[in-house]
Amino acid sequence: MKKIKVGLIGLGTVGAGVAKLIKTRHAYVKAKFNVDLELKTICDLKIDPKLRKSLATVKATSNFHEILNDPDIDVVVELIGGLHPAYEIISGALNKDKHVVTANKAVISNYGRELFRLAHEKKRSVYFESAVLAGVPIIKTLTEGIAGNQFTGLYGIVNGTCNFILTEMSTNGLSFESSVKLAQDKGYAESDPTLDINGMDSAHKLAVLIALAMGKFLKVKEDIYTEGITHISAEDLAYADQMGLTIKLLAIAKKNNNKIEARVHPTLISKKHPLASVNNVYNAVLLDADALGDVLLVGQGAGQMAAASGVFSDLINLAIDNETGPRTWIGDNPNEIEKIALRSMDEIETEFYIRLMVLDRPGVLSKITGILGQCGISIASVTQKAVNKNSFVPLVMLTHVAKESSVKKALQKINQLKEVAAKPVAIRMEQL
Amino acid sequence: MKKIKVGLIGLGTVGAGVAKLIKTRHAYVKAKFNVDLELKTICDLKIDPKLRKSLATVKATSNFHEILNDPDIDVVVELIGGLHPAYEIISGALNKDKHVVTANKAVISNYGRELFRLAHEKKRSVYFESAVLAGVPIIKTLTEGIAGNQFTGLYGIVNGTCNFILTEMSTNGLSFESSVKLAQDKGYAESDPTLDINGMDSAHKLAVLIALAMGKFLKVKEDIYTEGITHISAEDLAYADQMGLTIKLLAIAKKNNNKIEARVHPTLISKKHPLASVNNVYNAVLLDADALGDVLLVGQGAGQMAAASGVFSDLINLAIDNETGPRTWIGDNPNEIEKIALRSMDEIETEFYIRLMVLDRPGVLSKITGILGQCGISIASVTQKAVNKNSFVPLVMLTHVAKESSVKKALQKINQLKEVAAKPVAIRMEQL
Repeated sequence: MKKIKVGLIGLGTVGAGVAKLIKTRHAYVKAKFNVDLELKTICDLKIDPKLRKSLATVKATSNFHEILNDPDIDVVVELIGGLHPAYEIISGALNKDKHVVTANKAVISNYGRELFRLAHEKKRSVYFESAVLAGVPIIKTLTEGIAGNQFTGLYGIVNGTCNFILTEMSTNGLSFESSVKLAQDKGYAESDPTLDINGMDSAHKLAVLIALAMGKFLKVKEDIYTEGITHISAEDLAYADQMGLTIKLLAIAKKNNNKIEARVHPTLISKKHPLASVNNVYNAVLLDADALGDVLLVGQGAGQMAAASGVFSDLINLAIDNETGPRTWIGDNPNEIEKIALRSMDEIETEFYIRLMVLDRPGVLSKITGILGQCGISIASVTQKAVNKNSFVPLVMLTHVAKESSVKKALQKINQLKEVAAKPVAIRMEQL
Repeated sequence: MKKIKVGLIGLGTVGAGVAKLIKTRHAYVKAKFNVDLELKTICDLKIDPKLRKSLATVKATSNFHEILNDPDIDVVVELIGGLHPAYEIISGALNKDKHVVTANKAVISNYGRELFRLAHEKKRSVYFESAVLAGVPIIKTLTEGIAGNQFTGLYGIVNGTCNFILTEMSTNGLSFESSVKLAQDKGYAESDPTLDINGMDSAHKLAVLIALAMGKFLKVKEDIYTEGITHISAEDLAYADQMGLTIKLLAIAKKNNNKIEARVHPTLISKKHPLASVNNVYNAVLLDADALGDVLLVGQGAGQMAAASGVFSDLINLAIDNETGPRTWIGDNPNEIEKIALRSMDEIETEFYIRLMVLDRPGVLSKITGILGQCGISIASVTQKAVNKNSFVPLVMLTHVAKESSVKKALQKINQLKEVAAKPVAIRMEQL
């Protein structure tokens, strides 16, 4: 029997869920895994009295040092979120020779490299299954499930709020604003949903996935091109639908010739691909593994018990893996990592959906396609979505694969035409 | 550095792929995982001379006992398939204190219980990631990725041949026979595809999944209701499509009140569910985990490198897990297992799609719905698919949830009506 004593810091929604799982599944985990998980101490500035009562036999404190300094505690679970003092708790725990389980994407994406190195030195583990897709085991899949493969591509729907909003706009024709409101009413979006809808939450998760899948720690703000969903309209979703496409906020990484590209932006994909059916608050990650091929993992990437489940799995796996040292350490092997460069956004090549408001008048199309041609962009299809002589009508184009910098240049020129009203809408497209 | 010496028995397609991965990724695995995998000996009755040449430094034999008796070999990889001598190789290796990696669904579904018990006694591991979905890590997900959850439902598209055939029938309107022929031409189906299309291959894989997810070893032939896809017609797929549904061969398990139901049959599911977009030779498993919620895993469940990838991952994980003892052993804990009973097929409750060829004449529908009503089956929709007075026309019905035994009884009665030509087609439906 492997006995593990746990100190749990952060008794918010997820923390309360973890405490509940440790308590109610104690016998089950003992019988099935031969693991005896004991919640010894809980820590938060304030603990809900009802929760406190349900954990009457557990020690409680408001000072996390009590947990770090308790030699009896084997694992510290950090669930307070944010960078500080989460970083200090995790590094402090490792320095006190304790294992760590965390669900903190900010800490892992910002300090992962240092923390994994520290864990390696101290022969301790940092497990973080719930940092990206809650309990949906993407971390386990990347680090162990598909071991020995190199990952050449990665496409994630990793923000449930955005996916819910886009699903509502797409299937019910709601406006962006109404969809945000609905997401808030349903508790899927914060009262300030900025970090979800501007793509930053997805970028943090992408940084964690890239570190695991491609061996490079990127700086979220500097290295990951991030574009949110605020400029997506129900109109564009409807046009996409007519062409057998849909729009998802994708976190994308590709690796080839020792270069990585990393970007978060709304992306057109075929409705026939299983990723297109990942709707509402569901999340998913599609992986291109060089020996295995493409693998898709779908599930609920948020929610109390979904996140608690990932932390709970980490605790069980940690208890079993205990003797082997830090299993998910992703190292600083210079041979593998230092050679990897970052591809600049200007070099990226994708297909594009472009929507313009153009004057319905002979010769306009020729001007526009002329500019695209000059910039080396070839067109796959053009559809004028209405007829209204001498008025502005939507013109929708799909391009073949084109360089980001060329498209940018072409759109600037097109934007200057007097026959084009409003700023062109340009959405990248991926063939999955 | 963890050094593992491997003996590989069975140099067919997958075996050759594994040998290739061990050889070409030796340095990568050493650098990334600190694991030194050495292929020491290969064994087959006949080894392709070109393959032999590419493995010139590896010892070769046609007698597997040479591998079992070599005290220097840590892990035996069994890739000969079938029950015998695969069982003798695996049990022999364990008895000689060696770990085992296998991709053999027949051995695991038939002898899993004995082999896992033996492994437990000998403190050795049996890894078998590739036994169900090739390298798509469903075994890892069930045993570790979603640890601490109880699985209440499991829905798998686990046979690529059947899925290819149904996809062709559904998207290109091909007949069953033409689709089988096409699958054979493309190398997706054997010249004798019986075990694929009659569902037995899926039943074996379901038995493995149920053992892992629900803790009970079922007897494939006696315990798993198995119905193949030979009676599915392009016509039914087209009618399903009109109703927003599609047909997949699903391997299904559900567990509640300590009873398990286990069945393989063509199943109608909503086209909106991501599982419906799993097409061609792709495989998938949808899991209902009680804390986490539903999780879907999709990928290529067959093919040389996909299967070799799973075996290769097993070898790496085994090298790392080495000291912890048998990680994926799923035990004989009597508390958990003995109480679980099998639900008989007659007790199963599902919705049904029923297609009849009926005489287009007043009063016929009333007779049919009368019989269904008497048997306690309520109808969700009825559509007569053509009008042709006094001739036989297709009548398509969807029922609400009904007992299997009631539907069987009703269909027998309906079959006796002189206004009904041909045997009724009945296909179960699942709400995922």
